Amino acid sequence: MDPASPPTPAEPTLYWEDFVPGTTREFGGRTVTREDVLRFAGEFDPQPFHLDEAAAERSLFGGLSASGWHTCALVMRMLCDAYLLDSASLGSPGIDHLRWLAPVRPGDTLSVRMELLSSRPMKSRPEVGLVQSRWTAFNQRAEAVLSMEGWAMFRRRRPEVAP
Amino acid sequence: MDPASPPTPAEPTLYWEDFVPGTTREFGGRTVTREDVLRFAGEFDPQPFHLDEAAAERSLFGGLSASGWHTCALVMRMLCDAYLLDSASLGSPGIDHLRWLAPVRPGDTLSVRMELLSSRPMKSRPEVGLVQSRWTAFNQRAEAVLSMEGWAMFRRRRPEVAP
Repeated sequence: MDPASPPTPAEPTLYWEDFVPGTTREFGGRTVTREDVLRFAGEFDPQPFHLDEAAAERSLFGGLSASGWHTCALVMRMLCDAYLLDSASLGSPGIDHLRWLAPVRPGDTLSVRMELLSSRPMKSRPEVGLVQSRWTAFNQRAEAVLSMEGWAMFRRRRPEVAP
Repeated sequence: MDPASPPTPAEPTLYWEDFVPGTTREFGGRTVTREDVLRFAGEFDPQPFHLDEAAAERSLFGGLSASGWHTCALVMRMLCDAYLLDSASLGSPGIDHLRWLAPVRPGDTLSVRMELLSSRPMKSRPEVGLVQSRWTAFNQRAEAVLSMEGWAMFRRRRPEVAP
């Protein structure tokens, strides 16, 4: 992606009101290469089991695996491509219950299931609403590799309407 | 860092027993450049407030800021350099209470305070011990920008000794 031309439209399609609790969506299909794994780990998480095949085979992971933070970053990119870049996203205050459930291997193709858990207006900012989601990432064998829950902030389409 | 030659020694200095609950350490001092912010966001989190100065100024962040996942990755690198690469680290099952407390700006220099919260042997693997830590990242103005808690696994130096 060219950082100079982000693909976000001037007027987003999705506002806070469009994230309906109880809804589930699946998306993604992003393959992580061996080069990706080594590059991210070399920059941010140069532990031997993320960089060296022989050390990785001796480790609890039993083979080369992506940094858990790399998996988080890949999930983030899938969220962006699936809906965030077409939304009135305002960022996130944080994440709970982040779990790395299984190793992500070079060549794995990841997808994401998003469950919308709850939703509420932000008291201190009437133009903003909060959405709580659970995201679970799966590999191509439908094994869960990551799960996490978090709150995201979106602009409200009609902030004057009391919920 | 050259991925072909990770700097981990054959025999680590730090084992599970060396992470003593109640201990606090401070380390880091890593500056994030504008180029770093744009490159990470372009690859993993291309929302306008991470890529475009004008859009960022109109956003809740009030100016260009690093992706929260970039901040996590930078903290991870500081943990690696401070102690993980010299330890018998076996990875982490997950993170709780991850909070992005303030924007990380291009040019910010980050440091980390680590508090060791608790420690226990792993029931299913007697050669492994778990350590629970709280990490807080600060910018050069001593403002907290990120906090999180997590469990990490380390080999035990003397697994035969009951705790």
